[in-house]
Amino acid sequence: MSLAIISPGKNAQPWIEVLKNQNPDLTIQVYPEINDPESVEVVMLWNHPQGILSNYPNLKLISSMGAGVDHILRDETIPEDIPVVRIVDEKLTFSMTNYVIMGVLNFHRQITRYQEDQKKKVWDMSNPEIDVKIGVMGVGALGGDVLEKLDFMGFPVAGFGFSEKKDFPYPYYSKDKLSEFLEAVNVIVCLLPLTPDTENILDLELFSKCKKGSYLINVARGKHLVEEDLLEALDKGFLSGALLDVYRTEPLPKDHPFWDESRIQITPHIASVTNPKAAAPQVVDNIRRIQSNQPLQNLVIRERGY
Amino acid sequence: MSLAIISPGKNAQPWIEVLKNQNPDLTIQVYPEINDPESVEVVMLWNHPQGILSNYPNLKLISSMGAGVDHILRDETIPEDIPVVRIVDEKLTFSMTNYVIMGVLNFHRQITRYQEDQKKKVWDMSNPEIDVKIGVMGVGALGGDVLEKLDFMGFPVAGFGFSEKKDFPYPYYSKDKLSEFLEAVNVIVCLLPLTPDTENILDLELFSKCKKGSYLINVARGKHLVEEDLLEALDKGFLSGALLDVYRTEPLPKDHPFWDESRIQITPHIASVTNPKAAAPQVVDNIRRIQSNQPLQNLVIRERGY
Repeated sequence: MSLAIISPGKNAQPWIEVLKNQNPDLTIQVYPEINDPESVEVVMLWNHPQGILSNYPNLKLISSMGAGVDHILRDETIPEDIPVVRIVDEKLTFSMTNYVIMGVLNFHRQITRYQEDQKKKVWDMSNPEIDVKIGVMGVGALGGDVLEKLDFMGFPVAGFGFSEKKDFPYPYYSKDKLSEFLEAVNVIVCLLPLTPDTENILDLELFSKCKKGSYLINVARGKHLVEEDLLEALDKGFLSGALLDVYRTEPLPKDHPFWDESRIQITPHIASVTNPKAAAPQVVDNIRRIQSNQPLQNLVIRERGY
Repeated sequence: MSLAIISPGKNAQPWIEVLKNQNPDLTIQVYPEINDPESVEVVMLWNHPQGILSNYPNLKLISSMGAGVDHILRDETIPEDIPVVRIVDEKLTFSMTNYVIMGVLNFHRQITRYQEDQKKKVWDMSNPEIDVKIGVMGVGALGGDVLEKLDFMGFPVAGFGFSEKKDFPYPYYSKDKLSEFLEAVNVIVCLLPLTPDTENILDLELFSKCKKGSYLINVARGKHLVEEDLLEALDKGFLSGALLDVYRTEPLPKDHPFWDESRIQITPHIASVTNPKAAAPQVVDNIRRIQSNQPLQNLVIRERGY
């Protein structure tokens, strides 16, 4: 079986090592040095050049190198009949959840305020906690885990998603109930998949419906957020702050206003980084499944977008 | 029934309101204006002047105004036969646990590093997580809750305490196993009661046994920590940082070196603040119990110190 890794700008070496370790029979080629495109039956993709898959006439399986598949599905040249799978990884979930909880707690316990007080040598014991209710947009594997952990910690939570859900274990708002959802919470965590429905969903209109002083955590995709609208929402007091891990352009350009905005804490897309050691066995398992005609794991439904 | 509140420097008014609300028959006097000391049968204490209780010949019950009782037990003039009770409050536990988890996550996810990177406009995705194993010193109601929540979040944890424990649900080290405990973890959370055994326990000798670069969170009492030893342990690399909420002198004096130490994050004793609304019903319930000769709730065993 021949596999091609197409991930411009991302180091493929750690993947090659663990894939080979899992399945020594794999032949692995790394873009742009793919000398035998006809042999390629599986591709692993991360931000591949659009249209490139037409070079591989014998392609049978496309695997994302992470949890997201928006970078794959936006390529409209990909034949309908080739299955797309993604990585679902406990370690990914663990990292994402603890990053989000860090953001929630730093808002709840006002870490920025105490850092400022320390600089000014101020001892102020008043109002040590902001009451929070956390609303999670996107209630898949990641959002569901965030809800479960915060609920267990004793925080009130609610979920929002585009589909109807029965018997969801937490208060749940579907797409026509977005305003009610925003009125019910004061921390908004975006963990939505990036689809035409969700692109630019975090805009001034949405922020204007939030409780005054709400806090935003975006750990999904940069394109969920209209970045200039966030700055306006902060200036208008709709939001009091934000923790962002993803941006419309990454790395964040040096002249971007977020760098200097004290109400925004930024991190460089590190909330949840796919670990090849944890993820490669899933790719190898799906290769085995497609060879033996078994159902694939973590198959993406293209119409749904994830 | 007549009750006296003796809490110099702490506002008694919120307590009076909820106590009266719970039990309108209570007569409440507030120190130093206690006009009828002979009538006093119950005292609520927070840092009372030593020896003062001999003024109340009809005292039947002493209640701490918080979870800690070290401020009561250090007064050797208190008669042996008067029971001492303390506050055990879910809200106290909730606040303490989420403060500790905030400290753990900010170390684990290196929030200080990313704050510095933001100031310098640096985009550095390397090594986004520090592997942590959290050791909790003191495994009572508070320490036990911290262990339970962190374990549920997927973190490896261990407990340390002075007594032997059977069937403890997490790895547990008793007092003669302190060195092994310190070798097993890299985040140390102090939630011990303050007793002669535990005073000054966080000293250079203990820090020198920690894994290089360990992180300290002290949310118990200032006297657990030898403050100059913490600075030396940071300089020697035994520890890489600390989050402190309590100090030997509070408020922290303006000339104290902790204010200017970037490796130490300080907060003004706000990790867990007793909420009169949640705590007053416990005091009222214990008054009812002592009146009707029922066993008291949250009775302190003086020999044990908590």
